[in-house]
Amino acid sequence: MGDGTSPADDLLAAWPSMTADDRFDAFRHIDRAEVGGFFLGLSTSDQVAMMQRVTVGERQVWLRLLAPDDAVDVVQHLPAEERQSFLELLDEATRREVAALLAYAEDAAGGLMSPRFARLRPEMTVGEAIRYLQRQVQARLETIYLAYVLDPEQRLCGVVSFRELLAASADSPLAGVMRTEVISVQASMDQELVARIMARHNLSAIPVLDAAGRMQGIVTVDDIVDVVEEAATEDIQKLGGMQALDTTYLETGVLSMVRKRAGWLAALFLGEMLTASAMGHYENEIAKAVVLALFIPLIISSGGNSGSQATTLVIRAMALGEVTTGDWWRIVRRELLVGICLGLILALIGLVRILAWQEMFHTYGAYANRVAVTVAFSLLGVVTWGTLAGSMLPFVIRRLGFDPASASAPFVATLVDVSGLVIYFNVAQLMLGGSLL
Amino acid sequence: MGDGTSPADDLLAAWPSMTADDRFDAFRHIDRAEVGGFFLGLSTSDQVAMMQRVTVGERQVWLRLLAPDDAVDVVQHLPAEERQSFLELLDEATRREVAALLAYAEDAAGGLMSPRFARLRPEMTVGEAIRYLQRQVQARLETIYLAYVLDPEQRLCGVVSFRELLAASADSPLAGVMRTEVISVQASMDQELVARIMARHNLSAIPVLDAAGRMQGIVTVDDIVDVVEEAATEDIQKLGGMQALDTTYLETGVLSMVRKRAGWLAALFLGEMLTASAMGHYENEIAKAVVLALFIPLIISSGGNSGSQATTLVIRAMALGEVTTGDWWRIVRRELLVGICLGLILALIGLVRILAWQEMFHTYGAYANRVAVTVAFSLLGVVTWGTLAGSMLPFVIRRLGFDPASASAPFVATLVDVSGLVIYFNVAQLMLGGSLL
Repeated sequence: MGDGTSPADDLLAAWPSMTADDRFDAFRHIDRAEVGGFFLGLSTSDQVAMMQRVTVGERQVWLRLLAPDDAVDVVQHLPAEERQSFLELLDEATRREVAALLAYAEDAAGGLMSPRFARLRPEMTVGEAIRYLQRQVQARLETIYLAYVLDPEQRLCGVVSFRELLAASADSPLAGVMRTEVISVQASMDQELVARIMARHNLSAIPVLDAAGRMQGIVTVDDIVDVVEEAATEDIQKLGGMQALDTTYLETGVLSMVRKRAGWLAALFLGEMLTASAMGHYENEIAKAVVLALFIPLIISSGGNSGSQATTLVIRAMALGEVTTGDWWRIVRRELLVGICLGLILALIGLVRILAWQEMFHTYGAYANRVAVTVAFSLLGVVTWGTLAGSMLPFVIRRLGFDPASASAPFVATLVDVSGLVIYFNVAQLMLGGSLL
Repeated sequence: MGDGTSPADDLLAAWPSMTADDRFDAFRHIDRAEVGGFFLGLSTSDQVAMMQRVTVGERQVWLRLLAPDDAVDVVQHLPAEERQSFLELLDEATRREVAALLAYAEDAAGGLMSPRFARLRPEMTVGEAIRYLQRQVQARLETIYLAYVLDPEQRLCGVVSFRELLAASADSPLAGVMRTEVISVQASMDQELVARIMARHNLSAIPVLDAAGRMQGIVTVDDIVDVVEEAATEDIQKLGGMQALDTTYLETGVLSMVRKRAGWLAALFLGEMLTASAMGHYENEIAKAVVLALFIPLIISSGGNSGSQATTLVIRAMALGEVTTGDWWRIVRRELLVGICLGLILALIGLVRILAWQEMFHTYGAYANRVAVTVAFSLLGVVTWGTLAGSMLPFVIRRLGFDPASASAPFVATLVDVSGLVIYFNVAQLMLGGSLL
């Protein structure tokens, strides 16, 4: 008993910052009574790492400890040439189950489900169903608390919980007690969508059907926690302007880290080169009025920051299913309004700042007032435009068939930088033409 | 049966983009057989919105449909002056439970738990325990599949699953069958930590104890899915450079949206003003060599983008518990190496770009080669520094006692912009002093 503070728990806490050798060494020395639970609590990549280091005999013990859906995860993590030797360590029945599950994509319902669910027949009585389930307590079923009623073609007729069986009279027919309105998913459905359906309906398990409507397995809610966490991690990493990592941060090698980051960074760099071209276009203006150059970083970064806010909000709302592509026009109106408000606030701060500095230090020369107005109007334009562009980019990217989360904050900032320069120098031409310019 | 496509499900899918009036109208017209399940599937804020519009009599029906932990969420969502009138609609026993739960912070284990768990006494036999649990099937317990064995002082002695009871012989003493190594949490523990402990140990429920070790309730895994999703949403919004929203994107009014975003945007703007001061410092250099100004956005944004990648990675790894404050030195070494690699890649691209343009268009004047080298070295320096600063900022912010997720991409970019300018103009002084400068 205790707040997660057994030796095995302390080890789990220290685990992420340990080297591979230390981990294996520590794993070797865990108390025999605790090592099974410890192993089951490890991530799939850690389980693989431990199993690759032990003898074949011990490997078999660990592999057989895993439920079939977890064994599938392990096999999927292995290099192709090692898979067969691992599969051969399983007992015949499990090997068939694992092989069937391997046919599904890793991130689909079929790749997440367990084929070990409790099956009942509709012609049973409640009493027979209870006795049948009680005999299954030693079987390696995912759960006996939910049982699925199947016809001879394995099509799903209904679902019943153990609690409902206990509450019903023993001789009533199962067909009258089971719930026939069952929410189910297709084996090919993306796991994030499965997670959303389960969360929305507060389900502890959901049946998975194949294309012909035959029940293939169940996904349980504890698998869903990992799906939700993984999906959020991927989105967050994409939002940071990079490819999502395949494993944890500390486990990713420096080289593969560079590869995951260099691609986007170089793409953004190439995009940002357009700013050099845009600036080249305004070289004469800068030469005439160097004071204009001083505010360039301030103005373009304000557009980038406001765009980053808008794009982040929209991407997350899309991921949670709160916003769909049909909502784009509603979002345009909202974000336009929000952008104007934010732009006015920054314009006011900018105006006050320049006039105050001018008053105190005479920093900005004879035309300080006009420069201040130029900066203020540019900020209003850049922030409004940045907000609008940031909120629309995820829609455009989704329309093009890519993951909206690729509309990262750095991507939006890069996009808005060039237009920010164009807005700034055009406002300057309007305000300062004939005086400074 | 079906893929989540009953009328109620279609409504749930359309729900986010409907107005408040349309929602209530649709809610009124749901089939009586489905409306209960539909109501339970709504978010807390939607449940509150529906209940605020119906008569007091109907409000009581809906409120009593909720489990006590969900009723607590509803009451916490109400304005203070309405809470009492809602509480009075509950039956006496539930009102006491809800009042007790209200004492806990909303985001702590105590605010998430249900007090309705199955209790057993250690001196029972297995047979007595099974019969007792079977009699509880009609009681409104969160689950009868896990039962908690408590001593007379309500301290937790052990836990036993229904399945384990069925597998044991009926006359064996419960004390010999229950598991005594129980992972539990304190009522005050943050819900994200509870979620991580449950996910790590694959628990379907976890007991919650008060400071004196008395068991107060259980948190079930379906509550955890929401916690994980909410926590990720908050982190993502903070990473986008804003305060986390209190409700969904579409439900947040324009004014409160501006308030959530203007604070950080203004703070970043004030920080970014330092770039204007820094630029003022280099005004003479710019006047002498306007060509230098052309590359300013390119160079500072590269620092910002590489910093954004690093800070995003570290914040997510911290949130998942993969990286702790003690790992900072390891991260410094890693990110320094990664930053140098990324810097070299961008430096090379920049060098090639400038030399190619010079060759083709003679854009950059007599000293183009030196300008190209200046830009390349600046990029190396800025990207390395941006990566390092981005990875360290979450550690600094956590050390100061704030949420590391506040080290948003825009925050890092702003921080790195000023230093980027300093690096760039110092490299330029070194490379171009005596020629252009």
